[in-house]
Amino acid sequence: MIDLVKNFSISARRMKKSVIRELLKLTHRPDIISFAGGLPDPATFPEAEIKDIVDDVLTRHPHTSLQYGPTEGIPALRQEIARWMTRSGAKVEVENILVTTASQQGLDLVAKIFIDPSDPVIVELPSYVGGLQAFSAYGARMIGVPTDDDGIIVDLLEKKLEMLQHEMEHYKFIYLVPDFQNPAGVTLSPERRQKVIEMGDKYNVLIIEDTPYRELRYSGEDPPSLYGLCDSGNVISLHTFSKILTPGLRVGWVVAHPDIIHKLTVAKQATDLCTASLPQDIAAEFLRRDLMEDHIEKIKEIYLKKRDCMLNALDEFMPKHPQLRWTRPDGGLFLWLTVPEWVDCEEMFFDAVEHNVAYVVGNAFHCDGGGANTMRLNFSYPSEEQIREGIKRLAGVLKAHIKNKQPTEDEVDYIV
Amino acid sequence: MIDLVKNFSISARRMKKSVIRELLKLTHRPDIISFAGGLPDPATFPEAEIKDIVDDVLTRHPHTSLQYGPTEGIPALRQEIARWMTRSGAKVEVENILVTTASQQGLDLVAKIFIDPSDPVIVELPSYVGGLQAFSAYGARMIGVPTDDDGIIVDLLEKKLEMLQHEMEHYKFIYLVPDFQNPAGVTLSPERRQKVIEMGDKYNVLIIEDTPYRELRYSGEDPPSLYGLCDSGNVISLHTFSKILTPGLRVGWVVAHPDIIHKLTVAKQATDLCTASLPQDIAAEFLRRDLMEDHIEKIKEIYLKKRDCMLNALDEFMPKHPQLRWTRPDGGLFLWLTVPEWVDCEEMFFDAVEHNVAYVVGNAFHCDGGGANTMRLNFSYPSEEQIREGIKRLAGVLKAHIKNKQPTEDEVDYIV
Repeated sequence: MIDLVKNFSISARRMKKSVIRELLKLTHRPDIISFAGGLPDPATFPEAEIKDIVDDVLTRHPHTSLQYGPTEGIPALRQEIARWMTRSGAKVEVENILVTTASQQGLDLVAKIFIDPSDPVIVELPSYVGGLQAFSAYGARMIGVPTDDDGIIVDLLEKKLEMLQHEMEHYKFIYLVPDFQNPAGVTLSPERRQKVIEMGDKYNVLIIEDTPYRELRYSGEDPPSLYGLCDSGNVISLHTFSKILTPGLRVGWVVAHPDIIHKLTVAKQATDLCTASLPQDIAAEFLRRDLMEDHIEKIKEIYLKKRDCMLNALDEFMPKHPQLRWTRPDGGLFLWLTVPEWVDCEEMFFDAVEHNVAYVVGNAFHCDGGGANTMRLNFSYPSEEQIREGIKRLAGVLKAHIKNKQPTEDEVDYIV
Repeated sequence: MIDLVKNFSISARRMKKSVIRELLKLTHRPDIISFAGGLPDPATFPEAEIKDIVDDVLTRHPHTSLQYGPTEGIPALRQEIARWMTRSGAKVEVENILVTTASQQGLDLVAKIFIDPSDPVIVELPSYVGGLQAFSAYGARMIGVPTDDDGIIVDLLEKKLEMLQHEMEHYKFIYLVPDFQNPAGVTLSPERRQKVIEMGDKYNVLIIEDTPYRELRYSGEDPPSLYGLCDSGNVISLHTFSKILTPGLRVGWVVAHPDIIHKLTVAKQATDLCTASLPQDIAAEFLRRDLMEDHIEKIKEIYLKKRDCMLNALDEFMPKHPQLRWTRPDGGLFLWLTVPEWVDCEEMFFDAVEHNVAYVVGNAFHCDGGGANTMRLNFSYPSEEQIREGIKRLAGVLKAHIKNKQPTEDEVDYIV
């Protein structure tokens, strides 16, 4: 065979085996309680409705449901999305919508049409790992800005923008997961949203609003969306049916200015021609039948209980330590645990797996290599019973690691 | 809004509105007989079987059919593909297979992991436009090699390879559609296949075998596949269910050495995470039930008639002219018409549409800007009645253009 080392593209050479992927392989043993995934609970899938819809569309219009569709998405779905979003207060027309092969393709296409190698892109610390991977494939230089319980820290964001502007860098966009962030579970506050929008205009920079969980709020009030706050067209908003219907459909959508939608469409054509038609029909018909609102209420009921279960278990089992804390998300699928800084969560991971519990090491979500003392916990997939038992196990492992702080081999080498 | 002209990536700036797309917009009038598309005949869709299968899988395992799947593809589908391909003589294991969001994603991923801007890539003259678009998005420099009725002309191919080697260019692969090529309908001869494989080894270059139509042979004998001929791992083979099941599923697969499959998988993860699960289940179950062989026979019966209908209509209606000829494909969906060199098929297109018949201008398939006197005709979608009537109309338009050769405005300008 040809020498792959010599022939892979620079982009391919940047693609590393994902740490998450490798670690997750350890977590497939049936006795392991895994908080490492990001899967929706299959109990939230509207199986009966989907079965009925598939039967219906394959009876009414099999030829279009099984044929190629337009790259932009099938007209019925774009119309239904516009109707649904408009009902919840957004100003969205069909021409603002591109259907994508779920949100991940939205990230890939946005990267494809904006990023040249070495272009700076601003991301959160921590940030969604799939976003980091998509941007990295196109050679983006990731600039991390820390977050707190109210999302990205806007003063630090402005400092970075000032610096990038001062250095005449061709920065491309700010990438935010503003609602119940993956991984940290935090939500960008209304005041900060306003400031982010102002900065978009002031520094001439696009804002990518990646919001797969927005509809899944279990407590508190919805802040306005970034797309809704912005009058200048500077926000590209990424959505998906993965968490409110089912992820296996691989149907999402981008909302943006028509000039951006046009370029994304040309890019999508060379990427996968069009998104699968039958899954688009399922989503369109689900919306047309006005099933979405009630269905989302059902999902929220399930996840509210699971979130509370995890928070209660953490309160009950975790050791009390000033450097041990976790976020209390108002929605979404994840919460974020920060442990004392001398505990290395990657090292501890193997011990946790030994004790039949798994998480994702926070490091994977940090473009700056930080986050060694953090982890992401998923509460949507495991059962309440598993959540309680899993947090108990994790607390036990963590207690031992907090206490038995020993110099690692590396440190011994260093001391010697 | 930010200045898009300043902010689009180099790749985005290369993405032009497709000529085909723009011209096709003119062909949607119901009175137009269009040979311009590339759609399968919906009469070939196994609707009843698909309906039954969907009902079955959504009853037996709704949770996996609607959930995220592995990036590599669902295990059942990879196994069934391996079984099906092995039965037809290929040496394919599960580890050689990556499920893709149809063939177009295969092209995108191959480009992503191999092409750096300005890397030369060898393509056929003419070549599949979706391939050209996918490679162009990553900055490939397309080097065209002419084809004849036996596919790519291997002596000319070798000359290009020699030249590229001599100039120490980092050429990446040879892109071929060897079976009933889109657009020209020609098939690479067995002798030339052998030579292409030898050149792959001699010049250390990968061969991308894009073969969506291979199963659709209406006459003649199957030559061996390039993948089957190659022992060194230098062939990457792209496949799809689009033409043998339905294109709306968006399920295809790549067959390659496991080291290449691994890198493609990492690339796919950042691109769309995984292909839709339900469509994968449909394809897997269709294969598992051993329905494919008989189904392909039915498709071939339909397309054989349509191909013969088009060839007969061409023989009957087209003017006799030494510079007017067309390919006589043994399979696939397309044939290729070459008209006298003074007839500009793009100019004639508008006249054809006036006369309610449409085709794709051959120019779109030529990376070197050539092919102005060629066109692609699709025979899979229109009915036999439409094929006869459409070819009659096209012959009329063509006769007028062959006869009424007038200097164009440009030429007048030039002469002046």
